[in-house]
This record gives sequence, C-alpha cells and structure tokens, in this order.
Amino acid sequence: MAAEIVNPRSESTAGEGGTDEPFDPAFALHRGGKMAVRATVPVRDKDDLSLAYTPGVAKVCSAIAEQPELVHDYTWKSQVVAVVTDGSAVLGLGDIGPEASLPVMEGKAILFKQFGGVDAVPLALDCRDVDELVDTVARLAPSFGGINLEDISAPRCFEVERRLQERVDIPVFHDDQHGTAVVTLAALRNAAKLTGRGLADLRAVISGAGAAGVAIARILVEAGIGDVAVCDRKGVVSADREDLTEVKRELAGFTNKAGLSGSLESALNGADVFIGVSGGTIPEPAVATMAKDALIFAMANPTPEIHPDVAHKYAAVVATGRSDFPNQINNVLAFPGIFAGALQVRASRITEGMKLAAAEALAAVVADELSAECVIPSPFDERVAPAVTAAVAEAARRDGVARR
Amino acid sequence: MAAEIVNPRSESTAGEGGTDEPFDPAFALHRGGKMAVRATVPVRDKDDLSLAYTPGVAKVCSAIAEQPELVHDYTWKSQVVAVVTDGSAVLGLGDIGPEASLPVMEGKAILFKQFGGVDAVPLALDCRDVDELVDTVARLAPSFGGINLEDISAPRCFEVERRLQERVDIPVFHDDQHGTAVVTLAALRNAAKLTGRGLADLRAVISGAGAAGVAIARILVEAGIGDVAVCDRKGVVSADREDLTEVKRELAGFTNKAGLSGSLESALNGADVFIGVSGGTIPEPAVATMAKDALIFAMANPTPEIHPDVAHKYAAVVATGRSDFPNQINNVLAFPGIFAGALQVRASRITEGMKLAAAEALAAVVADELSAECVIPSPFDERVAPAVTAAVAEAARRDGVARR
Repeated sequence: MAAEIVNPRSESTAGEGGTDEPFDPAFALHRGGKMAVRATVPVRDKDDLSLAYTPGVAKVCSAIAEQPELVHDYTWKSQVVAVVTDGSAVLGLGDIGPEASLPVMEGKAILFKQFGGVDAVPLALDCRDVDELVDTVARLAPSFGGINLEDISAPRCFEVERRLQERVDIPVFHDDQHGTAVVTLAALRNAAKLTGRGLADLRAVISGAGAAGVAIARILVEAGIGDVAVCDRKGVVSADREDLTEVKRELAGFTNKAGLSGSLESALNGADVFIGVSGGTIPEPAVATMAKDALIFAMANPTPEIHPDVAHKYAAVVATGRSDFPNQINNVLAFPGIFAGALQVRASRITEGMKLAAAEALAAVVADELSAECVIPSPFDERVAPAVTAAVAEAARRDGVARR
Repeated sequence: MAAEIVNPRSESTAGEGGTDEPFDPAFALHRGGKMAVRATVPVRDKDDLSLAYTPGVAKVCSAIAEQPELVHDYTWKSQVVAVVTDGSAVLGLGDIGPEASLPVMEGKAILFKQFGGVDAVPLALDCRDVDELVDTVARLAPSFGGINLEDISAPRCFEVERRLQERVDIPVFHDDQHGTAVVTLAALRNAAKLTGRGLADLRAVISGAGAAGVAIARILVEAGIGDVAVCDRKGVVSADREDLTEVKRELAGFTNKAGLSGSLESALNGADVFIGVSGGTIPEPAVATMAKDALIFAMANPTPEIHPDVAHKYAAVVATGRSDFPNQINNVLAFPGIFAGALQVRASRITEGMKLAAAEALAAVVADELSAECVIPSPFDERVAPAVTAAVAEAARRDGVARR
C-alpha cells in the first residue's frame, strides 16, 4: 500500500519538524518531497568529469553558440517542462501562495514523468502582477522545452498565457484551461456517440466561467457543438449583460447562439449536456428539466455539482472529477501526452488543432469498451499517452509549428 | 570508457540534427542532455495517485499554508538548488548566452548530485540587467533551498549576489567567487604548512581582479594572510589609482598593506605566493624573482599563467586548474558540500565563517598524505563532501543562520 512507503530521503516519520499534525499517509508520503534529479551520464572518474564538465563541455557550448538549435540535441531542454504557478488558485484551496502550492506542482511534475516520460520542474513564483509573471517566465524559457501554467487565478491566467506565448518560441499551456477542455471534449464525444448523436446535435450548459469553463466552451465550439451557454454566478453569459469582463464579453460573442439569458436553472431546461466546473449545487428539479438522454459532467471536487446518484435518474452518461466514480475527467489523461508530442517535434506552440487531435485520440482509446460507465479511459490505461503523443505530434506538423 | 556510454534517451548518434560536427566523445555523451528527474514516491495506481496528487495533496498544501516552515519538510525545497546563470561569462568562452551555457549548468547540476547528494536545476536566464536578474531569481526563491550563481560576468555578479541575498531567506552563493576562494584557501593552508609557514608569514600576489580574484583576496585576508596584492590588466590595484571601479576601490581598501603599485611583475619580486585567475602568461624572469619556497597556483584554464614545468624551477608547491597536473584547484571540492551543509541546517545564508570552515575541513582531509604533490584532495576522494558538509553545518549553527 502506498501509505506504507517511506521516502528514502526522509529521516523520520510524520510528526517531527515542529508540527503536530495527526499521522496521515499523505504527510508520510510527502516527507522530503516527491522528486529528485539524477544524472543520465556517468561521473565516476576524471575521464568522465572531463567529458561531462570541463574541458569537454566547452566544445558542446561552443557548438550551441554557433548553431543555436543544437541546444535541443545536446541538453535536456527538449525533455523538460517548467510547471509554473503563482499559488493563486490552487486546487479547491484558492490563494494559498507559492510555497504551499509546491506539493501540487511536484505532484504534477511526477505525473509528467510517470505518464508522459517528460521531465518537469516545479516553479512556484513569488509574484502576482501579470507583467512580472510574463517577464519572469519568459526569462526562464531558454532552459525549458515547454511551459505548463498551473493554478493561476482567472482572469489573469488568460492574459499571462496569451502574452507569454507571444514572447517565447516554446509551447505555453495553461493546463487548468486546456487540459480540462481536451479531456472533457474526449468524454463528450464518446458520450454523444454512445447515445447515437454527434456533437452538432447537442446543446450544452457550462456552469463556471473561469479558466476551465472558458476553455471548455472554446474547444466545444471549435469541435462543432450545436450550442453552448456558459453561466457564471449571475447566470448565462450573454451579450446583453453589462457587467462582463473582457474575457466574458468575448465568450458571449462565440457562445449562446440561442440567445439565452437569465439563470443557469432556466438554461438547463431542455439542455442535452451539463458541464460543471464551478462548485455549488444544482437543484434536482432543474436537472429534471434537461432533455432525454442527458449527459451530465459534474466535475467539481470534492463535491460534484450534481451528485451521481441524482444525475443517474435523468442522464444517460454521468462523469465527475472524482476517482471513486466511473468516468473521471482527469487532466492527467491529456497533459503528459500533449507535452510529449509537442516536445517530440519541438513545437513552438500548442495549436487548437493539436488540442482537438489530443481529444480525438483520447476518445478513440476507449473504442470497443465504450459504455455509459466508460466514456473516457483510466489514467492508468497505458495506451493513452502514446496515442495522445502521436496525435499531437502529427497535428503539430500539419499545423506548421513543428521544428523537426 | 565514458566515451562509449550512449544516453538512453538519445535516438541516434552524433552527426544527426543538422549538425556536421566531427565525432567527438563529448558530443556523444551530451546527446539528449545529462540529467533527468524522477519520482521518489510510487505512482502505480489510483491509491498512489490519491495520496501524491489530489485529493491527498490538498491536506499537505493546507498544512504549509498554515505553517509555512513545513514547506521544508513536505516538499523537495530543502533538497534542491537552482544553478542560475545569464550565460555572460561561461568557462573561458565568455559571453555565449543562456542556451549555449546550458551544458555547463547541467554539468554543475549533476556534480551537485554526485558529490553532495543535492538536487539541482539548471536555469539559464534570458536577461542581463542587474535589476531583472535580481527580481527574476528572487521570484524563484520559494521553490528552492539555495541559489548557486554561475558564470555571471563581473562586476554585475557582485551586485547581483549582494542584492539577491538581501531579498531572499535562502543561501545565495556565486560559485565562481566563493567556491574558487574556498578551495584556493584550503590548498594554500596546506602548502604553507608543508613549507613550515603559516598564512600570516605569506605575501601573495593575485593576477585577476574579476569574480575569483576578488573573492580569493577577501577570504585570504579573513583567514589572516600576511599581505595580498591584487593585479588587474593595469597592475596592482592600489588606492592611489584613479581608474578603479567601486569593487576595486573596496578591494584596494583591504588589500596591499605594503602599498605596492605598478606592474604585476614588480609585485612578484620577493612574493611568497602567486595566484593566477586571469589567463595571460607570466614571464619566467618575473617568476624567478619570487621568494624562496614560493607557492605558485596558476589556475587559468586551459593554459596556466605559469606552466608547471617553469613553476617547479622556483616553487615548493605548484597547483593548477587542470586535472592532468597534481593539485587541481577544482570547485567541485567545495560547492556540493557547502550547499549540502547549508541545506541540512536550512541556513538562511552562507556566512564568511561557513566558507572558512569549508576550507579548513577541506584542507584537513589531506592530513598525513600532505606532500608537494598533494596539498588538496582529489575530487573523487569520498571523504571530502561529508567533511565539508559537517563543517559548514556546524559553522552555520555557530553563526546563528541555521534554522534547525
């Protein structure tokens, strides 16, 4: 059992270190951190040292100085992703600051390695200003093959990602947006297929207009959804509202073809799809007004917006963000393969085409196993990362952003 | 032979990748980079995932948010050092930029691991301005237990280090300065002892007033050298010169008690010690004017300022920066143990006392083996890092900068 694993670098068990937390397997597991670096070349003797370090290394440096693209061949740059946060929107915990976010970033880094074979370095930054975040990460870019933004609060996350991608020639990917969007789309494709429909036949309602909600709306529109309305705390994000931020104004422009306005509950009336990325609870009577064969993705953690027991009364397919129910919408199905594919071809960015290709590949893994309890693979399905990697690399070439 | 090792992640041999470099074992070794990250906890199944990532990780994050010092217990922060450069003064190659410096930084990172058990992450930054460098690294501080500055050109390196250390509560250590100074002092202590003298009996001349020269002068004065004169291209750095930078004015204030002025060659007349960290060549007739039992440390790479064959005609002890002569002054003898010791006690900075303790511990390793050919241990002497680590940790406690 994982709870019994003791970090080999830890000197003691939980309870030490001035803390009085009760024994908990999560604390025991985290003692000393969850990751380490290792050399992939030998450093046993003088000869090794003279190749891996001075004087041998100087030839390699000079070669890169003359031919800059060689940095991809002779360093770990093209193997390594920075997992960058400012600690402002961590899990469901909110703004807990950079230090307290580190366990999540380390966790992310080891998932990159485990599932995508991608090296990753957690970087929790002590700054909040968008200019400062962009400047700082742009200055780090020479050392990395990609930037995974994580747990940065909306709406700053949108601007940080956009401006950063304009500045650097490596992929910038805010996983809370796009990872979630890719996996949601994959599951929705399969759920639609299972109920004999295409995406074009569906009208969806998204609860939550933060990072995930905006990105899901965008990818669903790109993938050809019939219609999608996004709701924030004040109801449907519609063009007639005067309280919209820039991001939501833009959102109103490409969603809600039906011209809905008013409450989330009213929007649910006759809707085919509910996608929850907000928290809060949807009253059962509103769920009951959804169309026949509804698809309910209640992804808030730890408490889904609609409990699966309730959802199943009205829905053909139910998905959540939790590992203890079927159909877990888990980003780990996407980000390792997306970055592995992007790094493989040294992509300069991650295009919409690459995200759509990732979703299609992910959906296709399910294949013959497709059922109401299986519209998305398990994170431990070993076919996932290779399929996503290959699809993303191919899409990068097709979209002209591959550099090899 | 190291030359035959093929990086397991490389797909091909040297020659691929658009380059036409001749086959060289250094290139073969560097293909795909020299390092990787690894998880130190298992991620085999759902249960593992729920501890190392959500939901288990949330408890650990919350605990750190409430009790910030727990970040040292439950993340890799206190195991990991950032190896930071701007690529402005790389080896003897000069200003080759961040990308081309990466092989050196990766090399440094694996030496940290190999010799000190310290994890390290290479960060080559795309910025040059002192303010920008300080801001960028300060923002990275939450994720690291220490900052090793590397290959940043003088005089910016002095200001970057000083200002950064004022801003952050983790050790900042410019290895080109202090690593070199510590190892030089250790070797000089032993060389003096071998020739029946103490440091107070010696008058030294340093060729080079850059990062290493300034730091060596400072540590020698702190350790009680009789006198030391530092020379730049224009000769002895003396208070009567009107062309001095701020750093050199300060240097003139605490060195050169004898009030020398004029050329390096004239300063060598009757000097007991020559320390070269400049490049260039010292004419043999000037070497011949040194005092009896001279100690010559000609550390320029690859070409020592005084060739050992020449030096041996006049000197009792000869040291160089090269691995193919005896007495190699190699920073790897110092930085792994210095950081390991500082991290062990969670030091907030590296004091002068910690550096002096490192030098003493390093010198003491030689013990009974002390001879003209052995005033400093081999980098592969396994006693070195533990001795330096223990001495540095103890000195940190003595100096009141230890946090456990």
